Amino acid sequence: MMSTENKRRSRRRGDRKVAHAAPAKNYRQLKHAFKPQEIFTADRVAAIHEMALKVLQELGMKVLLPEARRLFSEAGAKVEDDMVFIGREIVEAALQTAPNKINMRSINPLREQLYANGSMLFKAGAGCPNATDLVRGRRPGDLESYVETIKLVQSFDVLHTFGPAVEPQDVPLHERHYAMMDTQMRYGDKPLFVYARGRAQVEQSFDMIRQGWNIADDEFANGVWASTVINTNSPRTLDNPMAQGIIDFARHGQMTIITPFCLAGAMAPISVAGALTLQHAEALCGITLAQLAKSGAPVSYGGFSSNVDMKSGSPAFGTPAHVQMQIGAGQLARYIDLPWRSATGAAANCADMQAANETNMALWGAAISNATLTVHAAGWLEGGLSFGYEKFINDLEALQTMAELTLTVNADDAELAWDSMYEVDPGGHFFATQHTLARYENAFYEPLVADLQNYGSWVEAGSQSSAERATKIWQDTLSNFTPPSTGAYAHERLAGFIAKGKAAGGADVLN
Amino acid sequence: MMSTENKRRSRRRGDRKVAHAAPAKNYRQLKHAFKPQEIFTADRVAAIHEMALKVLQELGMKVLLPEARRLFSEAGAKVEDDMVFIGREIVEAALQTAPNKINMRSINPLREQLYANGSMLFKAGAGCPNATDLVRGRRPGDLESYVETIKLVQSFDVLHTFGPAVEPQDVPLHERHYAMMDTQMRYGDKPLFVYARGRAQVEQSFDMIRQGWNIADDEFANGVWASTVINTNSPRTLDNPMAQGIIDFARHGQMTIITPFCLAGAMAPISVAGALTLQHAEALCGITLAQLAKSGAPVSYGGFSSNVDMKSGSPAFGTPAHVQMQIGAGQLARYIDLPWRSATGAAANCADMQAANETNMALWGAAISNATLTVHAAGWLEGGLSFGYEKFINDLEALQTMAELTLTVNADDAELAWDSMYEVDPGGHFFATQHTLARYENAFYEPLVADLQNYGSWVEAGSQSSAERATKIWQDTLSNFTPPSTGAYAHERLAGFIAKGKAAGGADVLN
Repeated sequence: MMSTENKRRSRRRGDRKVAHAAPAKNYRQLKHAFKPQEIFTADRVAAIHEMALKVLQELGMKVLLPEARRLFSEAGAKVEDDMVFIGREIVEAALQTAPNKINMRSINPLREQLYANGSMLFKAGAGCPNATDLVRGRRPGDLESYVETIKLVQSFDVLHTFGPAVEPQDVPLHERHYAMMDTQMRYGDKPLFVYARGRAQVEQSFDMIRQGWNIADDEFANGVWASTVINTNSPRTLDNPMAQGIIDFARHGQMTIITPFCLAGAMAPISVAGALTLQHAEALCGITLAQLAKSGAPVSYGGFSSNVDMKSGSPAFGTPAHVQMQIGAGQLARYIDLPWRSATGAAANCADMQAANETNMALWGAAISNATLTVHAAGWLEGGLSFGYEKFINDLEALQTMAELTLTVNADDAELAWDSMYEVDPGGHFFATQHTLARYENAFYEPLVADLQNYGSWVEAGSQSSAERATKIWQDTLSNFTPPSTGAYAHERLAGFIAKGKAAGGADVLN
Repeated sequence: MMSTENKRRSRRRGDRKVAHAAPAKNYRQLKHAFKPQEIFTADRVAAIHEMALKVLQELGMKVLLPEARRLFSEAGAKVEDDMVFIGREIVEAALQTAPNKINMRSINPLREQLYANGSMLFKAGAGCPNATDLVRGRRPGDLESYVETIKLVQSFDVLHTFGPAVEPQDVPLHERHYAMMDTQMRYGDKPLFVYARGRAQVEQSFDMIRQGWNIADDEFANGVWASTVINTNSPRTLDNPMAQGIIDFARHGQMTIITPFCLAGAMAPISVAGALTLQHAEALCGITLAQLAKSGAPVSYGGFSSNVDMKSGSPAFGTPAHVQMQIGAGQLARYIDLPWRSATGAAANCADMQAANETNMALWGAAISNATLTVHAAGWLEGGLSFGYEKFINDLEALQTMAELTLTVNADDAELAWDSMYEVDPGGHFFATQHTLARYENAFYEPLVADLQNYGSWVEAGSQSSAERATKIWQDTLSNFTPPSTGAYAHERLAGFIAKGKAAGGADVLN
């Protein structure tokens, strides 16, 4: 016979085991927990929208690609040389057909995402020409660092889609899309990124997705398997590869994320409301072109607006204006009922407190404005000129914290812990209460890089900053990396396609 | 005659001058701009409040000070040895008399604060036994560092009240209050902090305020010239100096900020809701005692709850649980309609990305939960064991950004910048538009320590991290420090009082 005390101990061990077996928290599909904030009254949101329509109609957009101008013209827009003047009825019709919910597909169903208002997706720093870490220093981005960053992104659930973290500059441009698609599918199973560098590269990239992941043509055409970011050239210019990308992605049913990069005071008006007006006009232009290319095409509203330092002209990130423009952009996106992309960022040149402050400010800006997708959320440095490995790891801590904050806090009666408080006398502690033992394994977020040791132990361990500690974390992540089960197969399936493509001279980029 | 063009130029110069003469942004009195977020439904907030009342009534508080137990007993509470069982009617009566708006007075009217829900006040890291900076390293806090931190706090408007940033350990305890009050009034003119270290020290400190700032007895009694932080000893213990402080501050009309320090999983239940239930019970106990000592006494609700790391038992800050408890505490404070204090924090041992991440997370937690006062908002390191000068400077950047975010964004028609967009062709820039020239001087927040140079210039300038750059900023701030006009006078008026006090043996502290 077991004594009562032993029974109790036995039950505790049981509880412990159950707690241990609990699944890890799901950071894969996140929903915003915070109510969106506002900087504009409803009438001023409407006024900005109206003004943006007026900009498109009366000032027009410079659209370099003849095919795009033709689409606008056929819809009734006035075209003069390379200027396109888009009437409001054309924009309004486009907003009627643009879907507000987009399913991002992936070879791994667990990685799929609902891209819609309310969802919270993160993407690592993207488009960096350089890579930097504390072991190898700063160097031009190459295929090795591109592969590493894809592996790193794949390794953390809180990053939801791939992006071109580091630019593999050692691969010739006409073959670069082969390397980038092969790497994403060989080492990853998250929603894919395709650069809009002209029809030839885009269509070959789509071919590679179908081949590598063995997707039937109609399944590809009816789902979003790839996305790209379309940057307008503010003010009011849509260049060739961007316009071509909008058209080609739309016709193939793939997603474009229209993102004016409006730096207030430089390439955009200096006022928050003015920069957002220009951003809104340019985004509406891109959204409209997507719908003209194919009605119902998946397209995301986007904004990456911040300010420049008026003394030096340097772009700044995580500033009050950046956060204000995020909140305003969220209001505009909800006004036109489209999901939208925001961005955090950092001008800092190394993984220091400035870098963390800048990135966190606009990360919170994205949270309180309910951005659907927040780009540059990990690793971005130097205003995007470098991808920092140690910053990447430290940024993940912030992202994982943000992910945890989307989880519901249980406040059932048992959580109020009466029994536990009854059990513990004044001056006592709660370490051994039943309430604690039943919950301690998964009660709290376990830090990735934060070191909670006291000062003495930290000094004994080498007085390493969180940047220095991050080195071992990304190294270990890469050493222990296991590709997804689909990786080897995709790589094998792509080998022939790529060899053939290279033999045929690759694919030219559109300038 | 002036040509039209010259007239236009002249007008531009005029605009520029006007912009230049615009007053600096006011960080002195801030109002929350964000709508408070919620983690609990209204019925669960009520349930936590009810459970806290039950804790006080049935489990009771251990109250070490006989005078405090007598006050509870006279109000009808059941007292058994040092345990006090407080009926809900006693707490509810106290909540009826505790004011929800408190004017924090100062010798400088520009520094006065409305301490009420909706206000946003910041206070630097407080109570640190050590000081650390990159020049002198880490050392025990002394009077020199205490004086320096008071000067630093005085120098930045975004810090609204004084606190005991660094503990001047080289001053004997029985004379320490002389040094601390003299320093605050000699070098500062912000609302003052007085340690609750027993009646003798508190009453002498109040005497010093009246003397140093030449305040008549009734003016002092009718205004809040000093505040103190009361930490309960969780779980459910109120020690002698804290209880004495509540009583003495209340009777003198000065403010106590009741702050249980509930570390979930250690000295508080492991669940967020449970830790908040204990926090709420202990805070209500302190608030009630203040009202029993003097009905209508100024008292603030407070919470500094976070979690411990369940592997090591180390306290953690800026964690998901910390932020959740801030949001929940805000809901509880609004439920009882009292202003409240929160705290950010950092376990980091140096001014690195961890430190910034931790501090920023709970800074935003305080923002989205509308904390009236956020303590430890700048300079706190090592879970409060060190005050870091470089971290202080970097944290100010975050605080100033937060302050800017409270300012209204103008979205009048002129801000939508039609003329400006009309003026600038596609591919052009906005640097020289009338709209920009009229606004550029004050358009954007000017960073304190963030370096926006590109990588090459940053390397040429010495590749300094933001922590390294901060050294010169605090050094320059101290070198250029000018005491307030009231400082020399206060110091002179206090000299005699302090000399007499010291000659009489100082004032014992209560343990």
